[in-house]
Amino acid sequence: MTHRSSDTLIDTVILDVDGTLVDSNYHHALAWARAFAHHELFPPIWRIHRAVGMGGDKLVAHVAGDEAEQRVGGPLRDRWTQEFDRLIQEVRPFDGTRTLLEAVKARGHHLVLASSGQPQHVETFLGLFDGKALADAWTTADDAEESKPAPDLLHVALSRVGGSAGVMVGDATWDAQAAKSAGMPSVGLLTGGFSEAELRDAGAAEVFEGPARLARAVAEGLVEGLPSGPSQAPGR
Amino acid sequence: MTHRSSDTLIDTVILDVDGTLVDSNYHHALAWARAFAHHELFPPIWRIHRAVGMGGDKLVAHVAGDEAEQRVGGPLRDRWTQEFDRLIQEVRPFDGTRTLLEAVKARGHHLVLASSGQPQHVETFLGLFDGKALADAWTTADDAEESKPAPDLLHVALSRVGGSAGVMVGDATWDAQAAKSAGMPSVGLLTGGFSEAELRDAGAAEVFEGPARLARAVAEGLVEGLPSGPSQAPGR
Repeated sequence: MTHRSSDTLIDTVILDVDGTLVDSNYHHALAWARAFAHHELFPPIWRIHRAVGMGGDKLVAHVAGDEAEQRVGGPLRDRWTQEFDRLIQEVRPFDGTRTLLEAVKARGHHLVLASSGQPQHVETFLGLFDGKALADAWTTADDAEESKPAPDLLHVALSRVGGSAGVMVGDATWDAQAAKSAGMPSVGLLTGGFSEAELRDAGAAEVFEGPARLARAVAEGLVEGLPSGPSQAPGR
Repeated sequence: MTHRSSDTLIDTVILDVDGTLVDSNYHHALAWARAFAHHELFPPIWRIHRAVGMGGDKLVAHVAGDEAEQRVGGPLRDRWTQEFDRLIQEVRPFDGTRTLLEAVKARGHHLVLASSGQPQHVETFLGLFDGKALADAWTTADDAEESKPAPDLLHVALSRVGGSAGVMVGDATWDAQAAKSAGMPSVGLLTGGFSEAELRDAGAAEVFEGPARLARAVAEGLVEGLPSGPSQAPGR
């Protein structure tokens, strides 16, 4: 891997999947609430919602504390998988998801779908909009050593297509934070239920309503217009 | 009813129920999404979530447009009731809900639980924290001619306890807007999943994390410290 200079042009668009391309965050929040409740834990669901998008390995401690993680973290995550499996057939792609992917490719950028979801869930979601046919690469939870907000997944995404500079697109504050840690700019979408102020506070350079609006901006040269992040070695 | 002068002290605390005292907004959002989907409508769930807290009679048009309301508004609302009835047993009061009600009463304020929910849902929720034993009055959707963000429900709440000036406490931007229309100050809670910036933009004078934090502030004199709104006739 090489250091890149600060005037390197962005050549790679890294798209989060859950909550960004498919409308899944509210199902995630409720599945987590049910899994917590199964273990007699009742965190407010708005706190769960705000944690969706960080790695599932980190969410239990973040929402309910280290003691809860140590006591029931593993079984609670297993329960979450069961609960989410009962809801996954309700999840749909957002209007404009396919258009966004096509706009990125038409503009000549590398396109990576960077999900940190479980492989079987990612498989299902990509199938909803024929993601594998459109993207140059994709990732799952299995591909990064440490989950978001750590930058690992973004480095993997970039290296998988031989990109030299990327922009991260996501719906969650964790996406913007991961991008910041990776030295990349980020773009936020309102699709996951985070507010514009929250996304900007977390570091998003631009915020769009959803994939359709972002697709128009990409077609008009948004990506080339973004400043690439400060020069930073992609590794740890 | 009398006009009140601008230096009238606030004597009445009006608490929204759904999303403010009980953790129900995410169930509402999903129940609406399922009801929309039943009618082949697929608005992004974040938009539904942002509309929860306005009257159900207004939500369909707000989220999916007037044409959808005219075509399927009634049946869609019926379907929503069915969907929500399947989820209602998962709804719990927030930590601190009972403490908040007790703090309001201990301070000598009138206490009204101003729900715009369906009577049978309100009944269920008030039962979760013995609300009828603690409150001086309560309302349901049946009590106001026009739903939030119209101010009608707040006028009803105030008159039901013979209050002269009230403060509205709610989790949704619609509560803050209704309060503004009624000439009352409002306080926001983050419990419903709206962000602090959204609540303040809608007019909330103060924003607290949840009922427990608000209870402490009430005990310390928050309500007496709020400026009562501009003098305004209480309405129609």
